[in-house]
Amino acid sequence: MKSEQIINELKKQQADAAWITTPLNIFYFTGYLSDPHERLLALLIKENGKQVLFCPQLGVEEVKASPFEGEIIGYFDTENALDKYPQTFEKLLIEAAHLTVQRQRELIEAFHVQSFGDIDQTIKDLRNVKSESEINKIKKACELADKCIEIGVDFLQEGVTERQVVNHIENAIKDYGVNEMSFDTMVLFGDHAASPHGTPGDRKLQKDEYVLFDLGVIYDNYCSDMTRTVQFGTPSEAAQNIYNIVLKAEQEAIAAIKPGVTIKEVDDIARNIIIDAGYGEYFPHRLGHGLGLEEHEYQDISSSNTNKFVPGMVVTVEPGIYVPGIAGVRIEDDILVTEDGNTSLTGYEK
Amino acid sequence: MKSEQIINELKKQQADAAWITTPLNIFYFTGYLSDPHERLLALLIKENGKQVLFCPQLGVEEVKASPFEGEIIGYFDTENALDKYPQTFEKLLIEAAHLTVQRQRELIEAFHVQSFGDIDQTIKDLRNVKSESEINKIKKACELADKCIEIGVDFLQEGVTERQVVNHIENAIKDYGVNEMSFDTMVLFGDHAASPHGTPGDRKLQKDEYVLFDLGVIYDNYCSDMTRTVQFGTPSEAAQNIYNIVLKAEQEAIAAIKPGVTIKEVDDIARNIIIDAGYGEYFPHRLGHGLGLEEHEYQDISSSNTNKFVPGMVVTVEPGIYVPGIAGVRIEDDILVTEDGNTSLTGYEK
Repeated sequence: MKSEQIINELKKQQADAAWITTPLNIFYFTGYLSDPHERLLALLIKENGKQVLFCPQLGVEEVKASPFEGEIIGYFDTENALDKYPQTFEKLLIEAAHLTVQRQRELIEAFHVQSFGDIDQTIKDLRNVKSESEINKIKKACELADKCIEIGVDFLQEGVTERQVVNHIENAIKDYGVNEMSFDTMVLFGDHAASPHGTPGDRKLQKDEYVLFDLGVIYDNYCSDMTRTVQFGTPSEAAQNIYNIVLKAEQEAIAAIKPGVTIKEVDDIARNIIIDAGYGEYFPHRLGHGLGLEEHEYQDISSSNTNKFVPGMVVTVEPGIYVPGIAGVRIEDDILVTEDGNTSLTGYEK
Repeated sequence: MKSEQIINELKKQQADAAWITTPLNIFYFTGYLSDPHERLLALLIKENGKQVLFCPQLGVEEVKASPFEGEIIGYFDTENALDKYPQTFEKLLIEAAHLTVQRQRELIEAFHVQSFGDIDQTIKDLRNVKSESEINKIKKACELADKCIEIGVDFLQEGVTERQVVNHIENAIKDYGVNEMSFDTMVLFGDHAASPHGTPGDRKLQKDEYVLFDLGVIYDNYCSDMTRTVQFGTPSEAAQNIYNIVLKAEQEAIAAIKPGVTIKEVDDIARNIIIDAGYGEYFPHRLGHGLGLEEHEYQDISSSNTNKFVPGMVVTVEPGIYVPGIAGVRIEDDILVTEDGNTSLTGYEK
C-alpha cells in the first residue's frame, strides 16, 4: 500500500501525521481528483494509518463515489474546515514546496503544531516508480500520441500553417476519445523550430523542410509527451546532418537505460555525441524528465542527477539541436525502465 | 502608478521590500507574463521604488522585450537565483497565500529576513479596480463570448450531443482570433443542467428543452464568463417558470449595482426573489465573483461580503435554480461598475 511509506516516514521523523495538499498527490493516494482552486483540499495521514480528507462540501458526494475509504470532513465556505477536526499534532509533516505560508499559519493555530518536517521527497520517491495500472495508462496515452503524429503528418501540405496543423490534430484526436492534451501542442516548420520559444503561428509550410511535432495526450489522468521531426520533401543536407546526430544521440542514450545505471551517465551519452559533432552549444536543455500524472514530473534526466534508474520509472529522452536560420530538430520518446533494460512506449517511426 | 500603493504599504508596515510571486500579479505590475512552473519567478519592489525581477535565464530576452523597466536577475538552473542579489531585508512583505514554506525558508536564508508581513490584500484592492485599458480588453472578451453563444445556438438541432456543441463553439471561435477559452466550455441539455457537477457528454438534444451555455474567452490575457439558458422548442411550463424567476433575480440584482451599494445587498436581492418563489434551496452558490486577468478573482459577490461596489469593478451576476429532474437554469452577465451605476459588458439576448 502506498501509504505505508508515509507511515514509515512519520516514524522516522517522529511526527504525528502528514498533511498532503498537492491535488495530484491527493489523487495518487485516494483516487479522488479535484482542483479546489483557492479552497482547502487536504489529506491527513496519521501515524496509525488513519486517513482523513478535508474537502469542500460540494465535493463530498464525489469523494464518496471515489475509491477513498477514510473519513471525510466536508465544509461549507462559511466554515473553517480545520475547526471541524479538533486535534493536536505536535509534529506535522507537510509538503513544503506546496503548502503556503498562510495555510501553515492556519495549521499552527488549529492543530497546535509545535514543529514541521517535510514529506515532499517521500512522495516523489513513491510516484517515481509506477504501478502496473499506471504503466498501462501511460502506455495508452503514448499510443494516442503516436496517433496524433500520424494525423499531423497526413495533414501536411504546402501552404498549410502551423496553427492549422495544431487545430487539425487536436480536433481529429477527439474522435479517439481524447478530451485533453498534456500541454499546448507544438507544430513548428523549418527554421522556426530553432527558436527556443517557438509558438505555432501563421508560418506556412514550404517544400523541403522539417516539421517538428511536440505533443502529448492525457488518458485517464496520465500523460504522454513525444516529439518527432519529420521531413516534408527533402530538407537541406545541413538539416539532415543535424537530424542524424540527434537520432544517434537519442538511440544511444535510450540503449543505455537500465536499472542500476546512473541518470547522469545517460544524459552524458547523448550530450557527448552532440558535443563531438560540434553542436554542443545548440543543445541547451536537459535530456528529459519523469512522466506520469504530470507531463513534467520528478525526476530530471540531467547531467547533475546522480540517482540511478529503477524498474517502473517512466522518463522522456529528448535530445535536440537548434541552429538559428538552419533547423531545429528534437526527437523524444517515453521510456519505461524494466527489470533488465527498457521499453519505448511511443513508437512512431523516426 | 500601480506600484505607488505597494510603496505606501511598505511604509505603513515599516518593511524594506515586497516579494511578489503570483505570475498574474507579476504580469499586472510588469507586463511580463510567464508560468515558471517549479522555477522561481519573483518581483521585488523596494521601498525606494526600485523593481527587480528574478527570472529563469531562458526568459530574460522576453522580459527585455516586455514593458518592464527595472533590473533583471536571470539565473540558470544550476544557480541559486537569490545568491545573485546579495542584500539584507529586515522585514519583507510576501504574498502569504502564494509563497510556499520552502520559498520562505530560502528568503530567510538569502536575505537574512527577520520578520514577514503580507502584501496580499493591497494587491487584491489594486486589481479590484480596473483601468480603462483593462476594461477595454474585458469588453472585447465579452463580445467574443456573446459570439460564442450565437455560434452555439445556431448549431442546435435534435440529436446533437453536448460534447459536439462544445467542440463546434471552441473550434468556430478560433476564426475570430480566440486561442484560449477562460475555462472548459459547458453546454448542458435539459435536466442535465440541474446536476451541480454536470460535464458535457454524449447526452442528445431533445425537442422542447432548455440548453445551458456557460463559457468565456481570453482576449489579450483578460477573461469573460457568461451563461445563457436558451429554449430549444418549448420547454415545460415548470421549466419556463424557473427561467422567469432566475431572469427576474438577475435583472433586479444588476439594477441595484452602483457605487456605494454594499455587495451583500445585491446578493440578497437576487436570493430573496428566488427564496420568495420557493426555490431557495435550489440556489446553492454565491451570486457572482470578480473578473479580470482571472475568470474568478477577488471579490466574492456573496451574502457575507460587506464591502461596497466602487467604479471600475467588473463582476459577474449569475443566479441559478437547479431542480433535479426538472431543469437547471442560470443566467450570467459581466457587469462593469460605473460612476453612476453599471453597464453590462455581455449582451446576448435573454
